[in-house]
Amino acid sequence: MARTASLSGFPEWLPQERLVELHVLDTLRTTFELHGFSSIETRAVETVGQLLRKGDIDKEVYGLSRLQEDDDAGSGSAGTDSTQRAEKADPNALALHFDLTVPFARYVVENAGYLAFPFRRYQIQKVWRGERPQEGRAREFTQADIDVVGDGELPFRYDIEIALVIAEALGALPIPDFRLRINNRKLAEGFYRGIGLTDTAGVLRSIDKLEKIGAEKVAQLLKSELGATDEQADLALKLATIRTEDTSFVQQVRALGVKDDLLDEGLGELEQVIGAVAQRAPGKVVADLSIARGLDYYTGTVVETVLVGHEQLGSICSGGRYDALASKGNRKFPGVGLSIGVTRLVSRILSQEFAVASRAVPTAVLVALNDDDSWSAAQDIAAELRGRGIATEVAAKAEKFGKQIKFADRRGIPFVWFTNEDGKHQVKDLRSGEQVDADPLSWSPSEDDLHVRVTTA
Amino acid sequence: MARTASLSGFPEWLPQERLVELHVLDTLRTTFELHGFSSIETRAVETVGQLLRKGDIDKEVYGLSRLQEDDDAGSGSAGTDSTQRAEKADPNALALHFDLTVPFARYVVENAGYLAFPFRRYQIQKVWRGERPQEGRAREFTQADIDVVGDGELPFRYDIEIALVIAEALGALPIPDFRLRINNRKLAEGFYRGIGLTDTAGVLRSIDKLEKIGAEKVAQLLKSELGATDEQADLALKLATIRTEDTSFVQQVRALGVKDDLLDEGLGELEQVIGAVAQRAPGKVVADLSIARGLDYYTGTVVETVLVGHEQLGSICSGGRYDALASKGNRKFPGVGLSIGVTRLVSRILSQEFAVASRAVPTAVLVALNDDDSWSAAQDIAAELRGRGIATEVAAKAEKFGKQIKFADRRGIPFVWFTNEDGKHQVKDLRSGEQVDADPLSWSPSEDDLHVRVTTA
Repeated sequence: MARTASLSGFPEWLPQERLVELHVLDTLRTTFELHGFSSIETRAVETVGQLLRKGDIDKEVYGLSRLQEDDDAGSGSAGTDSTQRAEKADPNALALHFDLTVPFARYVVENAGYLAFPFRRYQIQKVWRGERPQEGRAREFTQADIDVVGDGELPFRYDIEIALVIAEALGALPIPDFRLRINNRKLAEGFYRGIGLTDTAGVLRSIDKLEKIGAEKVAQLLKSELGATDEQADLALKLATIRTEDTSFVQQVRALGVKDDLLDEGLGELEQVIGAVAQRAPGKVVADLSIARGLDYYTGTVVETVLVGHEQLGSICSGGRYDALASKGNRKFPGVGLSIGVTRLVSRILSQEFAVASRAVPTAVLVALNDDDSWSAAQDIAAELRGRGIATEVAAKAEKFGKQIKFADRRGIPFVWFTNEDGKHQVKDLRSGEQVDADPLSWSPSEDDLHVRVTTA
Repeated sequence: MARTASLSGFPEWLPQERLVELHVLDTLRTTFELHGFSSIETRAVETVGQLLRKGDIDKEVYGLSRLQEDDDAGSGSAGTDSTQRAEKADPNALALHFDLTVPFARYVVENAGYLAFPFRRYQIQKVWRGERPQEGRAREFTQADIDVVGDGELPFRYDIEIALVIAEALGALPIPDFRLRINNRKLAEGFYRGIGLTDTAGVLRSIDKLEKIGAEKVAQLLKSELGATDEQADLALKLATIRTEDTSFVQQVRALGVKDDLLDEGLGELEQVIGAVAQRAPGKVVADLSIARGLDYYTGTVVETVLVGHEQLGSICSGGRYDALASKGNRKFPGVGLSIGVTRLVSRILSQEFAVASRAVPTAVLVALNDDDSWSAAQDIAAELRGRGIATEVAAKAEKFGKQIKFADRRGIPFVWFTNEDGKHQVKDLRSGEQVDADPLSWSPSEDDLHVRVTTA
């Protein structure tokens, strides 16, 4: 992009860039709906208590407060009407959501009586994080999530299905090749437990830093912070270096000689996911036993996704299985889901020109004016064209034809419509210069020119 | 709706309600694009200085502050990186936008070098206002705006065009009949000036209360606060009672005997708008000389829109001409635009059941499983169907067919696909109970069943 955001971390697109983003959003929506996912949106605002429910979060949350505070005496809804300054101490204060999974879990619990389970939904919305902006990391960005949530239990098969839907969705986008890097929390936690490291969450947090700080420093962390022996640190790191594009990781893990029930369960699950995805979406998946995912709520399958050749961009799609994020009394709602970082992807598509829009505006035809009195007749012609799905504008002023043509050209409109004084119609293709007779009741542009197309460059 | 929002003023829809909202949003988008409007989105966040730029605003603004504040030493972008507590006194603090017009004006000024003028855009986004929630008034809601903005000047004809596009867009929605109530600020201000009331903004503010507090109290206000005589108050109120569905309001205003150049200009403009819209969208428009619009930035045409029979809902679409909202040094960007209150409309559509979705999920077909090993073959069938645009799910577990059928029925999926052990396919319509042979390579549901349809009830 030529421009920088006027507010750091809050990107905005020009109209022709927005067309690329719309293409991405439309493609995702179409794919998700073809797989039977329902659209929902949740409010952008949650209570602080809800957002921090899972304890420590590593996201910077934006709290809300009304600029013009008045005394809310008589509002009669003090409990939910809490718009005073957002304080960490006040769980009723309001804040902007930092992802779509936590609000979705809240939505499922609140509306459980109205939903049919397993509930499949997609959700495409903006989220906010008050982080320091950097490449690939904005403060306001769009995520596109799919999740399946069960009532009480959720068949493991959905872990496979979610990965397949995402592979299909990403495959339909104008982006370079990608890889789903998949691991399993049970596998990792069982392995750590099996080698005698009981603070499995602590080990996961350290392993999560592998790509950032390297193996040596992670080993130091494991020893200094978690009391690991040299041998334990060595085994934990050996596990994290295993990467296979098929199910051969199972043998490699077994070769490390660790025995644990949870490890076995995780190995079995990951084997199923990798086996099925490698078969149905060849070349798109790798078992990567270094993947940890920072957030605490994952309990099984965990996924990150890289663009091949753009690994430094970070994960463009992440998520996994969570068995205990949502519950209502004794009733549990286990789920599995993945979240595509739409803004991160679109930023890269635009900056690398992976795709471009065939024109800058939706308009296919500008109807030119002979004189100011012909505006209403021109609107009639435009209405005819629009009735057949042809996006059409009418010139606002009866300037010289040359000026009206220039106007269309400057806006990227491919066709200009003229009506002679004897009522004969002609349409000019501004790219070829060709001008032909045309009937407003039947003329159409070619399929290629009918709508804006976004094509890989 | 059966449910109440768990956070007062922040409505959320169930999946089948969201289908109605999506239908509304898709219909608006299609209409706007057919008329050559480009999509843009602006960030949800503006600086307080930007939002309060036009002086007093009558909207309750939500300020932002980071919950976990750290010292931003070394961020190196103190100027734009201002995420400390939002104070009215600090113009760099961040806040959520309360409409889409003010952010759009900022966007136009910032990107003027990259836009082709007159710039036509539509913008469909959420906005936030910390107002006391009540019927038809939420704290988070979606607006759908169209605007045309010129560089230096903008032909008056766009005032007419914007009204026509909106009449077409609203006419395509599943809502009752509506009326655009149109007035003109020049007409009103010129008239007040002509009768000797010089604080025209003050008079407008009083007249704006006409529907709420009645003629008598408005007359008192005009006299006590603006020093109007009995005769002046009487004339101002007489003007405000004029309502005509054609251009006969011109005569009625003339009959009041007031002379003023600005009044003449406003009369001429309103005559053009009412004349053209009454002709091209018969019965959809009324000249209503009581319409004032609270916000200060309108300078000519002003519009409110009511649903006939639902007037107490308030305006469902408002806006007008603003000649001075956006400027860059001496360069002015006059504009005209209208904003549809999508959430207000959708709330009413849902609560009055003006429209319903033909089914609750996008899914048309559930592929049933014979046994657990048939999942991959079932995915192949599903992929065939999806390839022809048929939304398809695969059962996750090989339960008894009766259970799988029940599952589909409960989710509102109309068709279930079976594969016999000898490889013969059949599809069952759950509504008729009819089961017929089907070929995954060619079978399709009827056009009516292919996608969810939203129809007026």
